[in-house]
Amino acid sequence: MRGRFISLEGGEGAGKSTQVRRLAEALGARGIETLVTREPGGSEGAEAIRGLLMQGSVTRWSPHSEALLFAAARADHVEKQIQPALGAGTWVICDRFIDSSRAYQGVAGGIDDAAVLALHGFGSRGLLPDRTFILEVSLDQGRARADDRDGAAADRFAARGDDFHAQVASAFRGYAEHEPDRIRLIDASGSPETVTEALLAGLVDLLP
Amino acid sequence: MRGRFISLEGGEGAGKSTQVRRLAEALGARGIETLVTREPGGSEGAEAIRGLLMQGSVTRWSPHSEALLFAAARADHVEKQIQPALGAGTWVICDRFIDSSRAYQGVAGGIDDAAVLALHGFGSRGLLPDRTFILEVSLDQGRARADDRDGAAADRFAARGDDFHAQVASAFRGYAEHEPDRIRLIDASGSPETVTEALLAGLVDLLP
Repeated sequence: MRGRFISLEGGEGAGKSTQVRRLAEALGARGIETLVTREPGGSEGAEAIRGLLMQGSVTRWSPHSEALLFAAARADHVEKQIQPALGAGTWVICDRFIDSSRAYQGVAGGIDDAAVLALHGFGSRGLLPDRTFILEVSLDQGRARADDRDGAAADRFAARGDDFHAQVASAFRGYAEHEPDRIRLIDASGSPETVTEALLAGLVDLLP
Repeated sequence: MRGRFISLEGGEGAGKSTQVRRLAEALGARGIETLVTREPGGSEGAEAIRGLLMQGSVTRWSPHSEALLFAAARADHVEKQIQPALGAGTWVICDRFIDSSRAYQGVAGGIDDAAVLALHGFGSRGLLPDRTFILEVSLDQGRARADDRDGAAADRFAARGDDFHAQVASAFRGYAEHEPDRIRLIDASGSPETVTEALLAGLVDLLP
């Protein structure tokens, strides 16, 4: 039986990487084999593209070049890692996927949502997760968690204004409204245990 | 006045790089300032992407990832080098451009021509050269010239079967038939001097 594909989305400091790990453990305890991965990256080729995206100044790439590079990385990741795992019956839990491209490239780069989805259709045959969780925290809590993590996370958070973070959060909520079956909003303000329970509750229809 | 944008296309061993250089010299002698460039590459970011495309095994990238990477490199090249030069009145002479993507990604990767052009529309706003010359030589002559050049060129030529080279040549001719104003076929079997003369004759309507 084909594995399930789950993505976790949200702004900086929402706790995605913690919850990706915790969710994999919780599923493992139920006998479900999981592959934990992340974007951009997740395969040899996609990690090389990630290097290009992360090096140099923030204005190194135009929004259009950046969108093409993200789509190329995702195409490689989907082909080399995600699809083979799903085909082998492994569940895939991915820290960021297409909805991050939609939100960040849309808000920061002004790229049309339809264009981001068209690139995804071309590169990755439009593969969508079976379920996407958007981890929501307040602006203050996101900032505090980014501060707690490390200097780079705090710098990344601070480099964008409050308006930017609010627009990204609003974009994510909009996707959830349009695709209520795939995308679920999760209140991520509580303890890690509470959030993991909410994720598991949001998978009840997919669990064997 | 805006500069003119000229691309040279054709298979391996057709003499493109020689003619790009010779054409720039001939235009320079007429007082026209030129920028000579090439694809993939031609700008700092695009050369970094070229590195990803040229490293590793030939199966490193799927045809779709490869098409996205070529489009990302071209978008950077167009934005950072080609458009600024044209805007400054410099003529740009480019060794391979969008028609190589169409031919090679179409023939080798099975990618739809419409999809390659859609990526170009997104990344580079569909910029087309004012004139494109397709340098045509016979299969035997292309192979002989590749052999003369260096071992890597000969290996590249030999790695693809005769059918492949014939299909690429046929794809290029098809584009010329559909866009006779932009794209001109050039018999590149003669001496370098003869070919450069043919190129200059093919620019007579664009020369000041």
